Amino acid sequence: MRRERLIYLPLGGAGEIGMNAYVYGYGKPGEERLIVVDLGVSFPDMDTTPGVDLILPDIGWLEERRHLIDAVFITHAHEDHVGAIGHFWDRLRVPIFARKFTGAIARMKLDEHGAPPSALNIVGAWPETVTAGPFVVGFLPVSHSIPESAGLVIDSAAGRVIHSGDFKIDLDPVVGEAFDRALWEEVARPGVKALVCDSTNVFSLHPGRSESTLGPAIEELLKECTGMVVATTFASNVARLKTIALAAEKAGRSVCLLGRAMKRMVDTATETGLLTGFPRTVTPEDAALLPRQNLLLLVTGSQGERRAASAQLAQGSYLGLKLKEGDTFLFSSKTIPGNERGVIRIMNMLSELGVDVVDDHDGKYHVSGHANRPDLEFMHEVVRPQVLIPMHGEHRHLREHVKLAKARGLAGIVATDGMMVDLSGNAPKIAEYVDAGRRYLDGSVMIGAMDGVVRDRIRMALNGHVTVTVIIDENDDPLGDPWCETMGLPETGRSRAALVEVLEADLGQFIGRADARTLRDEERLDKEIKRIVRQTAQNEIGRKPEVTVVVSRLA
Amino acid sequence: MRRERLIYLPLGGAGEIGMNAYVYGYGKPGEERLIVVDLGVSFPDMDTTPGVDLILPDIGWLEERRHLIDAVFITHAHEDHVGAIGHFWDRLRVPIFARKFTGAIARMKLDEHGAPPSALNIVGAWPETVTAGPFVVGFLPVSHSIPESAGLVIDSAAGRVIHSGDFKIDLDPVVGEAFDRALWEEVARPGVKALVCDSTNVFSLHPGRSESTLGPAIEELLKECTGMVVATTFASNVARLKTIALAAEKAGRSVCLLGRAMKRMVDTATETGLLTGFPRTVTPEDAALLPRQNLLLLVTGSQGERRAASAQLAQGSYLGLKLKEGDTFLFSSKTIPGNERGVIRIMNMLSELGVDVVDDHDGKYHVSGHANRPDLEFMHEVVRPQVLIPMHGEHRHLREHVKLAKARGLAGIVATDGMMVDLSGNAPKIAEYVDAGRRYLDGSVMIGAMDGVVRDRIRMALNGHVTVTVIIDENDDPLGDPWCETMGLPETGRSRAALVEVLEADLGQFIGRADARTLRDEERLDKEIKRIVRQTAQNEIGRKPEVTVVVSRLA
Repeated sequence: MRRERLIYLPLGGAGEIGMNAYVYGYGKPGEERLIVVDLGVSFPDMDTTPGVDLILPDIGWLEERRHLIDAVFITHAHEDHVGAIGHFWDRLRVPIFARKFTGAIARMKLDEHGAPPSALNIVGAWPETVTAGPFVVGFLPVSHSIPESAGLVIDSAAGRVIHSGDFKIDLDPVVGEAFDRALWEEVARPGVKALVCDSTNVFSLHPGRSESTLGPAIEELLKECTGMVVATTFASNVARLKTIALAAEKAGRSVCLLGRAMKRMVDTATETGLLTGFPRTVTPEDAALLPRQNLLLLVTGSQGERRAASAQLAQGSYLGLKLKEGDTFLFSSKTIPGNERGVIRIMNMLSELGVDVVDDHDGKYHVSGHANRPDLEFMHEVVRPQVLIPMHGEHRHLREHVKLAKARGLAGIVATDGMMVDLSGNAPKIAEYVDAGRRYLDGSVMIGAMDGVVRDRIRMALNGHVTVTVIIDENDDPLGDPWCETMGLPETGRSRAALVEVLEADLGQFIGRADARTLRDEERLDKEIKRIVRQTAQNEIGRKPEVTVVVSRLA
Repeated sequence: MRRERLIYLPLGGAGEIGMNAYVYGYGKPGEERLIVVDLGVSFPDMDTTPGVDLILPDIGWLEERRHLIDAVFITHAHEDHVGAIGHFWDRLRVPIFARKFTGAIARMKLDEHGAPPSALNIVGAWPETVTAGPFVVGFLPVSHSIPESAGLVIDSAAGRVIHSGDFKIDLDPVVGEAFDRALWEEVARPGVKALVCDSTNVFSLHPGRSESTLGPAIEELLKECTGMVVATTFASNVARLKTIALAAEKAGRSVCLLGRAMKRMVDTATETGLLTGFPRTVTPEDAALLPRQNLLLLVTGSQGERRAASAQLAQGSYLGLKLKEGDTFLFSSKTIPGNERGVIRIMNMLSELGVDVVDDHDGKYHVSGHANRPDLEFMHEVVRPQVLIPMHGEHRHLREHVKLAKARGLAGIVATDGMMVDLSGNAPKIAEYVDAGRRYLDGSVMIGAMDGVVRDRIRMALNGHVTVTVIIDENDDPLGDPWCETMGLPETGRSRAALVEVLEADLGQFIGRADARTLRDEERLDKEIKRIVRQTAQNEIGRKPEVTVVVSRLA
């Protein structure tokens, strides 16, 4: 009889930053009872996922084992941890556990997808625990860039695992719980089998700074501002919103929130009792009536998102509010790699309006929500696990995090999405490789990343498209000439004749000469027509387009 | 009679970083004799220019005035300054002037486009000058990240203008000329009407460091490397190539150059006498036989380019050379904004191979080729112009550069592409707005950025594509049902039936009910069919595709 084992399986978030989805299991191999930690999304980009709305982890492996899953735990309310919870509700239908604020955000997502209120269970912090099959799980408060983030204490017969969640070491995080070293040490005291640990900032060499250091810097900045001030950060960074709003209040500025997410986060944090002492805000209508030097707008769009409030303000005006020469725009944020062009675009539009742009200035106006390298070492020290398993990172982050651990005598293993780790023995080992990947929410449809749908769109973007129609009559003779239409291609090329005419001439010649067998053979006709279109286009315009061939046969 | 005037007109490079093209003119308004400074390109990206090969400035204004142009001057051999010279040769056919090394690079580009040898004139450095119509122009050596970069001294009856070119203040640039303060001061002494000045690094607050500081750091790094070492940087940064190659030699490593551009640059710099003392290199075949710890590969692809040597090595192997655990890969470069994803992709592939990646580490292994903020102030001080005109920058750089100048009592004016500045009076003023923009080299065809070709490709990438064919018989009756083919769209949507079948059913219903007038009316048919496809697709898959409608009429 095979022995029971404890497994860890990342399905998202290990080998990329985004769409976190981690699985833990305990039981006989193949029959483990499972819990899921986080179900997040990633965001698409034009290079690899044009037209896609959201990227989600492929949870096929979980769907096949739905009957084995006892619970889903959500560590915190960032989209890359909670964003898929609604989309996957119908496919999993297992109880979800979260703390109050995180739960309030998850609730909205579940409601949108018709999940019943009973789907979600609100849990208090450690020492409160949830029993889920063979697991006993507790939420261990930790500081991060959103309120009420938590690590998880995951106990089973195989011992204790600590899943760090996203965290930083902040002793004064302005909103939410400070990092409580004594509490983490107490939890670690009985011995920790594995620390599954955030790796995002393993390449940041300096210790992280506290959120509380930003207030004075922002106050100083506001003293120098004579016009309107706009500040942007992630709406979910409630502590930052408070820091900025309090600085505004001290500077005699009323605060106006712009952007749906901004208002939702402040409301949710207030309703759940996490946010107190936030200055009273003014509506955009009232804001428009205030002197510019008495106003600060707190807006969404720190990553250059095209439809967010910051982009709309940069384009001219938003809800009656207009920027002009002498105003100041503060990015209290860091640009996520890949978003640079969008952010720079906004900065240049602001520059054209005469607005002074201030960005994070090497951390003066922004601190990260993730533990830097020395803070990771500190966490290793506090938890003293038998083994470190890095998560929440690209391959380079995971590898570096293991190197960091090993340099200090701590065992570590790199496990990326789909690599199941057996934690039962003294040394962790890769037990299985599981299909993991991505799904796309594409319009209103969920598709697989490998379906070829997005690949075809990328090809059309790179190569353009030609439609060819041919009519074949009852006697298998061509009726008239082939007809071409192009999209996304130059009108004329080398020969200076219209591209469609050159294509039609070449295709006409081919069809005119084609023997009866070719004209009857659908596949061959399709293949030949595509070949001719590509070759002619290559000659004419130096490009081989995608081709749709429609052969209509008159019955 | 109108008085003669001196004008400055950027057609590219002012309001963006890339595709530099500046025009100076002297004469009666509208009849100015012209010179052109630089004709460069920019590089496309998937977000805005999918499938495009190169971005070039729209020189329509120049083409209309070809008879007025006396010369083109190329300041240095970077692609954003010289890259368009071949593509535009046939359209301009005016004499080109460059220094030796720059000329050698320009020559290759001109040869590719069939320009005669006489098109290009090689000029020595200041005090040598070229008379071009009303202008006398001299090349003033300056340090930059490519050998033989030069500012231009542009004299006319209206006074002296200094066009800085791309520059940094480097007193020991390893290859090429150091910044010669005495020479620049001597040139500035008679008084300078305007300094048209590089603005790239106006937001970099610290003084720039010398190329010569990198050698020791790279030598230190190599001491710690036990496996093969790969280093990448821009091929045109010949000084960096030499710095790295000499460090390799000291560490007992043979140097192997990989990538066409790498070899071409080293060869050209050697042939023109600029590069001396470069260690003897080994071929890839010989390199494959050397012990790994005795080898350093100098490779192209520092910006994550998909086909460059670095990408191929990261994918597994290139020309028989393979990376493995324990090797080191050095990015002696800075990632240009927008290229982050590509570079990170390579880094992660290297991480998967077990290769240690080292990047610029806050400047330890890379210095910029552009003057930082304090260096710009130094340049203002050396030249002491009447007015500063910032160039080579996005709007935010130009604006900041003018602010920097004004803070020190120097007049400045922001002029972006298409804004003609009249420099004749005491204060510069915008005299005219000229059509400026971009052209795309698209495959082998030059198209306008506003032609809609690329816009259509972007739309297909975002929305997918549907082809609809309808056959109408001699009596204007539909023959059979409409036929649909999709590309880049999910196969099924909300109704779980095939998308094409749902589309065909809705179109069949419309065609079946359409009255004779509609069936005869090409435009109306097209519009209605598109409307139905978009609406049905929106219902089914939440997306409105691009549609090509082909109505075939049997005569």
